[in-house]
Amino acid sequence: MINSENNKLEGGPLSGITVLDFSRVLAGPYCTMVLADLGARVIKVEKFGTGDDTRAFPPFISSESAYFMCFNRGKESIVLDIKSPRDRELLERLLNTSDVLVENFRPGVMDRLGYGPDRLAKTHPHLIYTSISGFGHSGPMSELPGYDMVVQAMGGVMSLTGWPGERPARVGTSFGDLGAALFGVIGILSALYKRTQNAQGDRVDIGMLDCQAALLETAIARFDVEGKIPTSTGDCHPSLAPFETFEAADERFVIAAGNDQLFLLMADAINAPELALNPIYSTNDLRVRNRPKLVADIDLITKSKPVQHWLDCLNDAGVPCGPINSIDRLLEHPQLLSRNMIIKVEGQSNKPFRTAGNPIKMNAYQDIDTTTSTKAPALNQHREAILAEVMADAEAYISSPKETVELENDTTREANPWMEIKTAV
Amino acid sequence: MINSENNKLEGGPLSGITVLDFSRVLAGPYCTMVLADLGARVIKVEKFGTGDDTRAFPPFISSESAYFMCFNRGKESIVLDIKSPRDRELLERLLNTSDVLVENFRPGVMDRLGYGPDRLAKTHPHLIYTSISGFGHSGPMSELPGYDMVVQAMGGVMSLTGWPGERPARVGTSFGDLGAALFGVIGILSALYKRTQNAQGDRVDIGMLDCQAALLETAIARFDVEGKIPTSTGDCHPSLAPFETFEAADERFVIAAGNDQLFLLMADAINAPELALNPIYSTNDLRVRNRPKLVADIDLITKSKPVQHWLDCLNDAGVPCGPINSIDRLLEHPQLLSRNMIIKVEGQSNKPFRTAGNPIKMNAYQDIDTTTSTKAPALNQHREAILAEVMADAEAYISSPKETVELENDTTREANPWMEIKTAV
Repeated sequence: MINSENNKLEGGPLSGITVLDFSRVLAGPYCTMVLADLGARVIKVEKFGTGDDTRAFPPFISSESAYFMCFNRGKESIVLDIKSPRDRELLERLLNTSDVLVENFRPGVMDRLGYGPDRLAKTHPHLIYTSISGFGHSGPMSELPGYDMVVQAMGGVMSLTGWPGERPARVGTSFGDLGAALFGVIGILSALYKRTQNAQGDRVDIGMLDCQAALLETAIARFDVEGKIPTSTGDCHPSLAPFETFEAADERFVIAAGNDQLFLLMADAINAPELALNPIYSTNDLRVRNRPKLVADIDLITKSKPVQHWLDCLNDAGVPCGPINSIDRLLEHPQLLSRNMIIKVEGQSNKPFRTAGNPIKMNAYQDIDTTTSTKAPALNQHREAILAEVMADAEAYISSPKETVELENDTTREANPWMEIKTAV
Repeated sequence: MINSENNKLEGGPLSGITVLDFSRVLAGPYCTMVLADLGARVIKVEKFGTGDDTRAFPPFISSESAYFMCFNRGKESIVLDIKSPRDRELLERLLNTSDVLVENFRPGVMDRLGYGPDRLAKTHPHLIYTSISGFGHSGPMSELPGYDMVVQAMGGVMSLTGWPGERPARVGTSFGDLGAALFGVIGILSALYKRTQNAQGDRVDIGMLDCQAALLETAIARFDVEGKIPTSTGDCHPSLAPFETFEAADERFVIAAGNDQLFLLMADAINAPELALNPIYSTNDLRVRNRPKLVADIDLITKSKPVQHWLDCLNDAGVPCGPINSIDRLLEHPQLLSRNMIIKVEGQSNKPFRTAGNPIKMNAYQDIDTTTSTKAPALNQHREAILAEVMADAEAYISSPKETVELENDTTREANPWMEIKTAV
């Protein structure tokens, strides 16, 4: 159904929505990338000179950052000099025609620039004003800087990740940023939905630490109910067995037989009916208690043959299982390819590279075309087009080289408030 | 601003939206929990006898599962016997008045029950029909069972998590389920928004594996651009230094000084100006290359004093840092408490326990009241109320004990298609 592209609309459900995006690095740009993938127009407002910090992050393709391109594909870029009266006027006009504002500065920075949520709630009440910050815009720690690494540690997930008795490990992706980004999208969309009823915008305030707590599954409840501090559990689910990795002849793989029936099916599938008959494995509770022996018993069998053999047997029997894929295997993964999950992105040099696509598959809309590349913007690439759109006096504004020079002179390192942001953030 | 509860509305932006929720265990229920937190009415359709599998998951409070209560707080519960003509009629009526359907069975199960997406697209075109499954409803692996553990392994995040040279670790929370749940919410809300324009529902098809790929940050792009397979990096960010844990006198903690300026501030803050002057640490690139020596140099200083000392120094200087909190510390965390992130939930026994609240803070709406408990439903608790609402002949339906008995007799283990689901999923 997903692959039949007949009668599907181009664009996405958010076509017609304009997002003014002051954010940079990861949480904000990932949030607005998801909105762009769903059809919104995202205008990325960048600082003079260097733009989004991630334009300087490796890896590079012909001096363009692939890091930047991953999360800013499909967006437009404009550099605004917030001190220049004319750019402020331009920004006011952009605010008039935008539906959503996203920023991920530290609390107070947007207020100092004159575009804080209180002011804009008065002058642009239709706007969904979205802040993503380390700790949110209220509370005793609101002013502190909160990076992904900091909230992963402070929010508890590091204490649950890694091997028991060893040093806690970081989740191998920026879970702190990405979790906050997704909750940010949810806040924005629910406010946009509500606005169709009451014509009012809203303020969405996302704290990365809050999101970490919300993504701990039952860890907080388990501690509160049982009084035992949940700890890291290596590669297994703490309350299900067998639900972990096992050793095959060539490499390790996962069996996730989370209930009694799946355990019986598994025992048959790996030709070890004696496991199913052993009373110490007769319930999940017993299997969790006897986990070390259970794992050893299964390993003894599985290490005789390669992973693919076991995956075939277990899949035939309907037992959840899988290989532990390294990243190189994802690019040719048949399921990801068939779901259009490996897409191409390119910058100004027209050298496409691959990254992950949009996992939200909707029947009414065509999925992204994986045969062409989505473009990421050069710094300030869309200034002229945006000016032409929103400024009545656009032609005069962009045709005079003198004015441009003056603009640039006006934005020295000392004078430009965007530089102040750089230090503040 | 968040804490001033004056002039705020009760409920949430999704007030008036009804979600018919066929899902169970984690990904689906977490998705509908987020919708309920935003004000939607969620009617949980449960199977006869045992209901959602997680009603049997530990930990328990007076024989009620805290696991179940965490993710089903604020929902209503009704048991439907899909084989009974009268329950099918009831379900049709519920579908007429619902906006969103969520299910996380394996592909084909809802079709066999007669409530597949193709049928409902014809009879209930206003509905947002949402499926969350291991691999999505298309592609060569669509039929395979995909649990959290399986997609964490298959989707690559395990290969990035843990310590280099050691066995890959699982992300310490069900990242596979929760990531899919959040993308599911986003799909639903964008379809709801679109429906306000064209009065059409849509189908949302979320594959957990797709979501894993989408949450890998730049890992796929890094491999495609550089040809090196990204690996696990322990507790550091692979391309930033210092951005990892360090040893204090009492325990380890995080410093995340991701750029040159923060590194200089950090060197001053820990009273080690010599680090800032050392040419081998003068750029982030050099610091990444010289990471082992850099970490040893910083450890030598930090291990002399306890964590709190260093956090105070670094926070004063504006350098991102934080403790590695275990779960017990979150329940009294001043920032989480001030943001209403520790809420109370209770079941039928009125014994509240604590779990994480809603991280989406919106100005127009009151946040959840942390002084009272949100209720989780008993199995079938809301049947009578729902019947009274939607059935014209509701009174006859619920007042006859004979009919109830007959209903129960009709739903033996063999005859009930929900049992078929149990085996199939």
